[in-house]
Amino acid sequence: MFDVRTDLALEAREMYVKSNKRECDGVEIEEREEDDIKISIVKVLNEKGEKNIGKPKGTYVTMDMPKLTLYDGGLMDNVSKALGKVLLEMVKVDEKTTTLVVGLGNWNVTPDALGPKVVSKLMVTRHLKKLMPNDIDESITPVCAIAPGVLGLTGIETGEVIKSLADKIKPDYIVCIDALASRRLERVNTTIQIGNTGIAPGAGVGNHRMEINEETLGVPVIAIGVPTVVYASTIANDTIDLVINEMVKQSTKESKVYEMLNSIDKSERSGLIKEILNPYVGDLVVTPKEVDSVIDSVSKIISMGINIALQPGLDMEDINKFLN
Amino acid sequence: MFDVRTDLALEAREMYVKSNKRECDGVEIEEREEDDIKISIVKVLNEKGEKNIGKPKGTYVTMDMPKLTLYDGGLMDNVSKALGKVLLEMVKVDEKTTTLVVGLGNWNVTPDALGPKVVSKLMVTRHLKKLMPNDIDESITPVCAIAPGVLGLTGIETGEVIKSLADKIKPDYIVCIDALASRRLERVNTTIQIGNTGIAPGAGVGNHRMEINEETLGVPVIAIGVPTVVYASTIANDTIDLVINEMVKQSTKESKVYEMLNSIDKSERSGLIKEILNPYVGDLVVTPKEVDSVIDSVSKIISMGINIALQPGLDMEDINKFLN
Amino acid sequence: MFDVRTDLALEAREMYVKSNKRECDGVEIEEREEDDIKISIVKVLNEKGEKNIGKPKGTYVTMDMPKLTLYDGGLMDNVSKALGKVLLEMVKVDEKTTTLVVGLGNWNVTPDALGPKVVSKLMVTRHLKKLMPNDIDESITPVCAIAPGVLGLTGIETGEVIKSLADKIKPDYIVCIDALASRRLERVNTTIQIGNTGIAPGAGVGNHRMEINEETLGVPVIAIGVPTVVYASTIANDTIDLVINEMVKQSTKESKVYEMLNSIDKSERSGLIKEILNPYVGDLVVTPKEVDSVIDSVSKIISMGINIALQPGLDMEDINKFLN
Amino acid sequence: MFDVRTDLALEAREMYVKSNKRECDGVEIEEREEDDIKISIVKVLNEKGEKNIGKPKGTYVTMDMPKLTLYDGGLMDNVSKALGKVLLEMVKVDEKTTTLVVGLGNWNVTPDALGPKVVSKLMVTRHLKKLMPNDIDESITPVCAIAPGVLGLTGIETGEVIKSLADKIKPDYIVCIDALASRRLERVNTTIQIGNTGIAPGAGVGNHRMEINEETLGVPVIAIGVPTVVYASTIANDTIDLVINEMVKQSTKESKVYEMLNSIDKSERSGLIKEILNPYVGDLVVTPKEVDSVIDSVSKIISMGINIALQPGLDMEDINKFLN
Repeated sequence: MFDVRTDLALEAREMYVKSNKRECDGVEIEEREEDDIKISIVKVLNEKGEKNIGKPKGTYVTMDMPKLTLYDGGLMDNVSKALGKVLLEMVKVDEKTTTLVVGLGNWNVTPDALGPKVVSKLMVTRHLKKLMPNDIDESITPVCAIAPGVLGLTGIETGEVIKSLADKIKPDYIVCIDALASRRLERVNTTIQIGNTGIAPGAGVGNHRMEINEETLGVPVIAIGVPTVVYASTIANDTIDLVINEMVKQSTKESKVYEMLNSIDKSERSGLIKEILNPYVGDLVVTPKEVDSVIDSVSKIISMGINIALQPGLDMEDINKFLN
Repeated sequence: MFDVRTDLALEAREMYVKSNKRECDGVEIEEREEDDIKISIVKVLNEKGEKNIGKPKGTYVTMDMPKLTLYDGGLMDNVSKALGKVLLEMVKVDEKTTTLVVGLGNWNVTPDALGPKVVSKLMVTRHLKKLMPNDIDESITPVCAIAPGVLGLTGIETGEVIKSLADKIKPDYIVCIDALASRRLERVNTTIQIGNTGIAPGAGVGNHRMEINEETLGVPVIAIGVPTVVYASTIANDTIDLVINEMVKQSTKESKVYEMLNSIDKSERSGLIKEILNPYVGDLVVTPKEVDSVIDSVSKIISMGINIALQPGLDMEDINKFLN
Repeated sequence: MFDVRTDLALEAREMYVKSNKRECDGVEIEEREEDDIKISIVKVLNEKGEKNIGKPKGTYVTMDMPKLTLYDGGLMDNVSKALGKVLLEMVKVDEKTTTLVVGLGNWNVTPDALGPKVVSKLMVTRHLKKLMPNDIDESITPVCAIAPGVLGLTGIETGEVIKSLADKIKPDYIVCIDALASRRLERVNTTIQIGNTGIAPGAGVGNHRMEINEETLGVPVIAIGVPTVVYASTIANDTIDLVINEMVKQSTKESKVYEMLNSIDKSERSGLIKEILNPYVGDLVVTPKEVDSVIDSVSKIISMGINIALQPGLDMEDINKFLN
Repeated sequence: MFDVRTDLALEAREMYVKSNKRECDGVEIEEREEDDIKISIVKVLNEKGEKNIGKPKGTYVTMDMPKLTLYDGGLMDNVSKALGKVLLEMVKVDEKTTTLVVGLGNWNVTPDALGPKVVSKLMVTRHLKKLMPNDIDESITPVCAIAPGVLGLTGIETGEVIKSLADKIKPDYIVCIDALASRRLERVNTTIQIGNTGIAPGAGVGNHRMEINEETLGVPVIAIGVPTVVYASTIANDTIDLVINEMVKQSTKESKVYEMLNSIDKSERSGLIKEILNPYVGDLVVTPKEVDSVIDSVSKIISMGINIALQPGLDMEDINKFLN
């Protein structure tokens, strides 16, 4: 199979089911709907599941925002609240829980800047708890945050920065936010994935190189990801699929056409895609033209969801007051 | 023919030749190379030419930057100088010539922000000539500049703003800079088109609605455009073309396959593309991931080229001194 | 009198009263308080008043925000509403009234960027009323907006741009927003002045050169200004005043000291200030260190106030929905 | 003495000499000029010197840029080269020396953003040496860089971040860049201080809380600082000094005036300054109005100076090629 990149467990499972035409062993899926938000929970149960969909054992929750969420402040708040609830199923927060939030990605590359933007809107409190414990509401929990940049900007592996900070600060949880690549356009900037297994190397728009998870850091790692791009090669590949499907419908299994179609599918696809996309040096991505403002809105939703989860003693109004 | 958008006269001609398999009447083309920069001059000679390629009568010069120009300051300077030369073939500048430079496009949408970015790097002098005529070098020519924004930001048709300013200021030339859509990825951010016929409605990434040309403004209008995006639908369409070509090679004219392929080509193509791209609301574009820094470099090249053309009495060093 | 710059009518009157030790002929003042917002209305009634305070005949409303407004979303909304009310006392808006909002100032200079920032947050509707009159709520009034930049950026007098647009668009009102200089630190970023006499040359942080008023534009001009800086020379001058006052208190009228103090006051003050400030080339201003975020909050307040005034058929929630 | 803040050793010494009217024991000063750049070297030799000027034992080099440097690319390059030379007197660089460059300060507060801006223009190479040792010129030395943000943004003490990274990366040198407060306007954005004793708590515009030096980090720390603000209280204080000096000149030692002047000096000064500045909450600073573009130019000078020092095998042209 041509290698189509997806960072979403839900899509990886879909692709498995579609291409193997059967259920995916070792992977469980469960769905519910809340406030018009579709929530899908993919559980990778064992090694078989890991192998089938290429994601480590653990839980992956996918939330689909209602249509037009990014154009409606009320819907945005609903998604934030739902995200807060999902997070609270993964972390146990009380006023002594210290959380380190990490915004992955490159702030100079708009579709990769989601993580740093989320961090810039967070309610950061760890220093207040330390410096003025008597002046600050007891129920506020200590949160600290960093956007470590990417290897090309710092010369330091992102994982190294996080590891060294985690060793120093000893947080109870690490929450990482990252921009992802999807394989379906309809998911771009409308889907949030929350997983309890950290970040794998090669994931994300910025392509991290080191694992960021409980094993490497010694602390549970929650990963929040939003697909912000589809690779142009994915679009090309999908187009070829559709054309071929269309033709297969019109031919018969015995015919030479069918055979020919399959031969294209196998051997030439990759060459065709190269022919289309290759002239350009560097990664080509498909994004909405207004990607700057879209990323801004999505980062608001995510940061408010994290604030809600990590400050269970406050309501949204309190949080907004703190932030302004 | 499926409607594939291009704002480049060179591509429009190519598409005509390819799809009609013959030369394009009423359109002349001429090529030369300078400093590794390929320069193509398309002349639309008459109404026939206008109709064939959908561009008004006039001259369209296309410059192809050498590979890696955006990563090499020396190459960038070469392209600026060549652009200056091309511009000077279209305008006649002396110290009394007033030029109004207009940066079209939306500064909030990175791939559409080329025009405003060029304007921000221009050598603006008209006020100095007026306010301190004795303190400023005589050879400096009066240049003024504006980035009028787009209809959605201002509520005013871009053409209205330019028209009202042109009536007031009475420049000798108007130079408009605009981000374009190409139909070929290899041209994205590497090609500059300079035309003497202004800007047509519906052109550019931001899609202007009013003609901006000598007829509407009463002043000659030079348009400088750089393709900064390819529409995702163009990629999908190209992929289909390539698949079909590949299959046609393997089939014979008499076979049913050939017929089938043609039938797809004609009736289903548009439906297939919709199926791939439709889930997403809004314009999807293909850009390099690092579009922010790329647009920055391209705008430097263009603004320096304009500065060179409009200040024939200065060399690049003088201009840089003025700007810093 | 040493020339201390203020763009606020209220301060000009205060300075007159203080330095002349009597009421200011031709100028009326009236005060009220609403929602903890102190509102002062200065009316310049005749030529005598004009001469006394150096501001043209007309009405100048000054609003003092409650303390900590910039840190509290609820207070910010209150100020916006009060501003909307004040504006509606100066303009008469129905669904056919077209307003052109102009954001004066330089977007590259943070304390001068207030106007352009306000414009970027406005509800712009004129094009919708024209392009899709049936799809848009009838009660919405046509608003258009522009940030013309400053002379140094465009080479075009700001007044020229506005004049040419006004002639073309023929709005019923022009509303100009501008960053001002105050002479009192406590007013910086906490005071809004709304006047119905337009903008005088030399006013504002960016120092416009052309009058922008009903006489020059043929349309009533409402000016909204917020002091965002105090000139460093003002601080130096105030310090000298205080020192001298202190010493005068301790001396007697007959003594030589008193005489000496007066001699300093008259002849050396200006020299002393130059000695302190001169080493630096360019305008030195006093601002809060966090000027970027402060200007951001103030621009939100102003733009919402304008939106409320110009869209009397909508409430704040509708406006927020439209804007997001 | 009223407490006037300066982060410059040169100014601290000046203030000592002026207020004590004698040389400063334990502190040596040496001056030279190169390329119109005045270079002063202050050496704090022992504990006496430390106490006298409040700076730890070590060497502090101050460079005064020639007038108009920020408006002239050629002068900027000269200053960068001279800075490179000064740095090379403090660090010993070969191709195995790893340097960690740290940009202190808050990127959201323009006059405090110097450090992060310098980091964004650095030649970062450590990852290239590690990932592709064969493809990269041998003479290139490993440099990595981070802008850790400030306590209020991250909830983590800046020193904690640097310490944990230093422990992990084990660099040979740490170079910290920080925006400083000066006590003299003429030094704002025109003076560079390079010291080999790190950063003291309470220094810098952003006011760090933890020492950042060889003792705390285990690695030699070079600190590069540029004064980007003067506190408004300093201006007020200077004004009072000048007024009093002026009056003292005109009085005699025996007179009551002299006594009175001294009494103001001692007891009321602080009250007067409070009266002038107090109305405003927060730190008031004096900056040039165009602080954004000024900080940009200064950061270019500093980053190029560091690049020159840390890459002794490359010339400026090579470095520019690498960076673009």
